[in-house]
Amino acid sequence: MKHLLLAAIAAASLILPAIASEPAPISSPGEIAAAAPASDWIAIAPSDLLVMDLAPDAKGPSTRSGPRRVVIQLMPAPFSQGWIGNIRKLAAAHWWDGTSINRVQDNYVVQWGDATEKKALPEGLAAVPESRYVESRFASAGVHAGAGGTERLLSVPVKTDAYSGLAGFWSGWPVAGAKEGHDVWPVHCYGTVGVGRNMSPDTGSGAELYAVIGHAPRHLDRNIAVVGRVISGIEHLSSLPRGTEALGFYKADAERTLITSIRIANELPAAEQPEFEYLSTESDSFARYADARANRRDPFFIRPAGGADICNIPVPVRAVAK
Amino acid sequence: MKHLLLAAIAAASLILPAIASEPAPISSPGEIAAAAPASDWIAIAPSDLLVMDLAPDAKGPSTRSGPRRVVIQLMPAPFSQGWIGNIRKLAAAHWWDGTSINRVQDNYVVQWGDATEKKALPEGLAAVPESRYVESRFASAGVHAGAGGTERLLSVPVKTDAYSGLAGFWSGWPVAGAKEGHDVWPVHCYGTVGVGRNMSPDTGSGAELYAVIGHAPRHLDRNIAVVGRVISGIEHLSSLPRGTEALGFYKADAERTLITSIRIANELPAAEQPEFEYLSTESDSFARYADARANRRDPFFIRPAGGADICNIPVPVRAVAK
Repeated sequence: MKHLLLAAIAAASLILPAIASEPAPISSPGEIAAAAPASDWIAIAPSDLLVMDLAPDAKGPSTRSGPRRVVIQLMPAPFSQGWIGNIRKLAAAHWWDGTSINRVQDNYVVQWGDATEKKALPEGLAAVPESRYVESRFASAGVHAGAGGTERLLSVPVKTDAYSGLAGFWSGWPVAGAKEGHDVWPVHCYGTVGVGRNMSPDTGSGAELYAVIGHAPRHLDRNIAVVGRVISGIEHLSSLPRGTEALGFYKADAERTLITSIRIANELPAAEQPEFEYLSTESDSFARYADARANRRDPFFIRPAGGADICNIPVPVRAVAK
Repeated sequence: MKHLLLAAIAAASLILPAIASEPAPISSPGEIAAAAPASDWIAIAPSDLLVMDLAPDAKGPSTRSGPRRVVIQLMPAPFSQGWIGNIRKLAAAHWWDGTSINRVQDNYVVQWGDATEKKALPEGLAAVPESRYVESRFASAGVHAGAGGTERLLSVPVKTDAYSGLAGFWSGWPVAGAKEGHDVWPVHCYGTVGVGRNMSPDTGSGAELYAVIGHAPRHLDRNIAVVGRVISGIEHLSSLPRGTEALGFYKADAERTLITSIRIANELPAAEQPEFEYLSTESDSFARYADARANRRDPFFIRPAGGADICNIPVPVRAVAK
């Protein structure tokens, strides 16, 4: 046996295959997700995927050379739709083509956009107010309604959240809410994609985006717009050299990574459109998966924690086998 | 103004300098730490620093070329001293020289040691029992004693922890404990260094180590030995190419990064010994810093969270100006 840390996989998009030759009990979170019936998996529409292609690593043959594709799933309504509408327009205008990754701050974020800050934006982008960081009308949005406040709206509520009255899952996404009332907002976990902005009351257009590559910066919740999450290829962002200027900005132009294109997936040729699905957070399989994340019963563990924070329960997402 | 995400620095080892030309109010966590009196900073003995040097990046001139030095602070007694004693012996024997980084799993860990698994260990390493993952004799260790259970032992207790009855800080380190009684254990945050192991009851010798490079894997607490934390140079680990085999192991020998040496710092020439200090977690400055992490008052923020998880309150550590 290899002398190694055997602890199971933490990344949302990786599922450990069950070992076929041993009828091992289904006990790890990954095994539970992999064993979920097909009906518990929900296809992600190509129209909700943003596909970012980075130029190949200029440093030559290595595991990091070759195509670098990052796939981002956009949040569903009612969350952040003003900014997401702008992102759709920017992608349709091919606005990001030729822009770059300008900032990589360790244990924090990778940020991209127009380094010159002079590129004209497409017309018709919305200026979204700060009030939309939170969906206060969530309960009346028609998706989930009923008495009981926020707690009734979320599946698999996480009892203990340091940043909110209640955290839990809704339609495949981690969210937090006030214990009383109907305020719900998306949360910052590893891989979360948000909108860079200037000082308040600016909320950003969506042209400048970032992805979280460190411990969940939950202090950003309700302070900045969350628009999606990286579901594939985050290693192409998280392994980039860190910038040496303040806040992880690159000093020299040559340090930046070129973005060759960003497209909504349904603009790509059909054969190239990525197909992903997520484990329904309203399914029994997900409830068992979340329980197993909080109470690890894989053979490696000797002592289950008895709890998990919401960002340590990544929603399983996988590529659809073609 | 640059159109960017201005949120303040998350990495423990980076402190934003106050802007000298503006008498801005001290409000951000970094400003509070930087303004702390010298007496609130505690020097870290070179004998408690592990210095790991990696071979230069073979891919040639880039921001990632040049020396790659990673500095790890070892945990103080009473925690994990059996494993740390082994680590001191391994370093004194220069055992890691010529070994390599063998595993980089995104949002999880970087792991290093002897890839051949055939290198003989020095004699006299201890086999430490699992019971030492937790210090159940903590209250009688003489450092802090008194009535009131664990809560009295920790400074700046974090009210809400998903993984334990109570989390807080002790002598510069984040720890968790049972609400009742005297069990205390170190926790896994970004940068935490732990000991790889085989299946229970093996606890690892300390020859195989890992550093956390993702969201806090708190489910590993009490399941594996925590021996320290990276206080400088973690970007040399976190930006390494991810391994493509299961659990992030590298496939080919050439993908591994060579470790040229690992030393306890006091074995280095005096001029080369790194000097660091940490902000006393028992100081008023730290209490205000932690409060500011939970209630961000920097001008960027419009809505303080009202809380923070323990791994989002990194203990400030800085190099001593020579």
